[in-house]
Amino acid sequence: MKIVTVDSACSVLDDNLLPTNIISMVGIMVDHPYDRPTHIKAMPSEYSLTDYALLVNELKLCEEMLSIEKADYVHLDMSLGGINILDITEEDLLFKIPLSETGRTIIKLILPELQKTAKSIKDKYQIPVLAIGKKSHPVRLAELYAAGYGVSNAINKAKEKKQAIYVGLPVRITASLENGNVKVCSQEPMETSLCAEIPVAEGVSMEAFFNPIVRGFQTLKLTPF
Amino acid sequence: MKIVTVDSACSVLDDNLLPTNIISMVGIMVDHPYDRPTHIKAMPSEYSLTDYALLVNELKLCEEMLSIEKADYVHLDMSLGGINILDITEEDLLFKIPLSETGRTIIKLILPELQKTAKSIKDKYQIPVLAIGKKSHPVRLAELYAAGYGVSNAINKAKEKKQAIYVGLPVRITASLENGNVKVCSQEPMETSLCAEIPVAEGVSMEAFFNPIVRGFQTLKLTPF
Amino acid sequence: MKIVTVDSACSVLDDNLLPTNIISMVGIMVDHPYDRPTHIKAMPSEYSLTDYALLVNELKLCEEMLSIEKADYVHLDMSLGGINILDITEEDLLFKIPLSETGRTIIKLILPELQKTAKSIKDKYQIPVLAIGKKSHPVRLAELYAAGYGVSNAINKAKEKKQAIYVGLPVRITASLENGNVKVCSQEPMETSLCAEIPVAEGVSMEAFFNPIVRGFQTLKLTPF
Repeated sequence: MKIVTVDSACSVLDDNLLPTNIISMVGIMVDHPYDRPTHIKAMPSEYSLTDYALLVNELKLCEEMLSIEKADYVHLDMSLGGINILDITEEDLLFKIPLSETGRTIIKLILPELQKTAKSIKDKYQIPVLAIGKKSHPVRLAELYAAGYGVSNAINKAKEKKQAIYVGLPVRITASLENGNVKVCSQEPMETSLCAEIPVAEGVSMEAFFNPIVRGFQTLKLTPF
Repeated sequence: MKIVTVDSACSVLDDNLLPTNIISMVGIMVDHPYDRPTHIKAMPSEYSLTDYALLVNELKLCEEMLSIEKADYVHLDMSLGGINILDITEEDLLFKIPLSETGRTIIKLILPELQKTAKSIKDKYQIPVLAIGKKSHPVRLAELYAAGYGVSNAINKAKEKKQAIYVGLPVRITASLENGNVKVCSQEPMETSLCAEIPVAEGVSMEAFFNPIVRGFQTLKLTPF
Repeated sequence: MKIVTVDSACSVLDDNLLPTNIISMVGIMVDHPYDRPTHIKAMPSEYSLTDYALLVNELKLCEEMLSIEKADYVHLDMSLGGINILDITEEDLLFKIPLSETGRTIIKLILPELQKTAKSIKDKYQIPVLAIGKKSHPVRLAELYAAGYGVSNAINKAKEKKQAIYVGLPVRITASLENGNVKVCSQEPMETSLCAEIPVAEGVSMEAFFNPIVRGFQTLKLTPF
């Protein structure tokens, strides 16, 4: 079973260790035994935390990856129980799917765009786009790679600015520098063998510490030297 | 404190790695220090995923085990906060216990049968049946043993059919073949020392991999050779 | 970033392994890299499980610690999404914050007292009291220290009473005796390096086992010899 998915991750943190943006989007293709991607496409673009185009662009990147290699499913990082994006109705959003008020508003806003891309994917490749989110193993694997490339991007930023920056990793992910790579591993139960290794520029030191205001999240201080 | 409980586990998966049935039911008796069963009773029966008789039969197996050795409590794999089954009223189901619409319907359907068996257990042994489910440590231990016997049953199936089959393990449980046994261990925090070892037939190889469509679940491919 | 917080933990368990009280309250000050306290203040006081003064007294202990050393934030062990205690309105409690009926009642009961102390802290130190609870890393660290001192207190109790007592640890925390200390460690993912070591009296043996009626919790049997 081949699955294509995209996830975005990592934020530069402000002085209060609060996230300010998203600095990495990565698409992956996975196949049996699902422990590493067979293809990777990293996008260094930046997004604000409230940019609803993020999810729309994630799905567009999935479509782009399908043009290189066909898959059986698209997993979208949107946690709606695995429903096919094209099957979501106004009624589902209003009554059937449990959603916060904010969640409902955002989904209503971007659903037309998502469904347009999902329709295009269905027409071209006859495969469904599933709103599976956090329940998907490939989405988690994409998150690890997005985290790895996010750290790589942040190291470049720290070098350009010639000053230390703080980066927040996704939940239950740790990072370390090893032989010119950043090694990013999941600390989630069952997933401790899941890691991503991404080459990074030299000249920046990395200190990892607990983010005191969000339990379960590691923060990195990247200092050019 | 002696506790008797029953759990069911493992499913043969279809080509889309979706579960099709339940292939193992195991009752255990536990006593201090609660790290392994003092008695085990394995039932190789099969259930469909929507067979509401499953929970009823689990409780009947508890009653059967009590006839061999008395316990202080019965833990039922039904997550209603530990309430005594005989204390559940129509009003609780309607207003007090948070339940999904489906959950409410199913419980209303099977509650009379459950209460009948719970009443019989109370009359014979003066002990309560608690609807404690996922919050119970013995229920988790029973799940491990049900998983172990489930794999054993699936290995027999693969040999009979002379073809590879896929089996889904319960959440955060891993399996491996060791010296003619399947060793099944919990990967849940605090529980990594909890394992069940069950003898299995020879002549089948086992490959474990991440189920891509349900994060946190291991899938086994069992191939006769 | 300096944070002060207080947590309470550990209970003597009855013969059914159910908690009866709270036997330890500990305040800590933390600073970068947030892996151990820079100051600790342990209070051996006992509270009943339904004593709403507990949270009020936790906040008073925070204020007391601030008089020794200033911090940037107070983290209160009350899980309301990190809202400033002084910003909570009647309307928030009624409509905006998701709360159980019991939770709502308790918070309404103690909010005036909490806000009085939070106001005093704001006036004296110009820092906010955040209702962040389980999402706070420092609150978890305080929980570890409260657990360590709780075991120490329980060991003294067992010696006084000259009989074995059972103690319940907080969720996903394990304890062991090492060189005259109790070593208490988190088993939560990401936190396995977080431990507290507290000196304890000699003459009591400790046996750790799974609490069968609450999964994920370790119970200690402390026996004077």
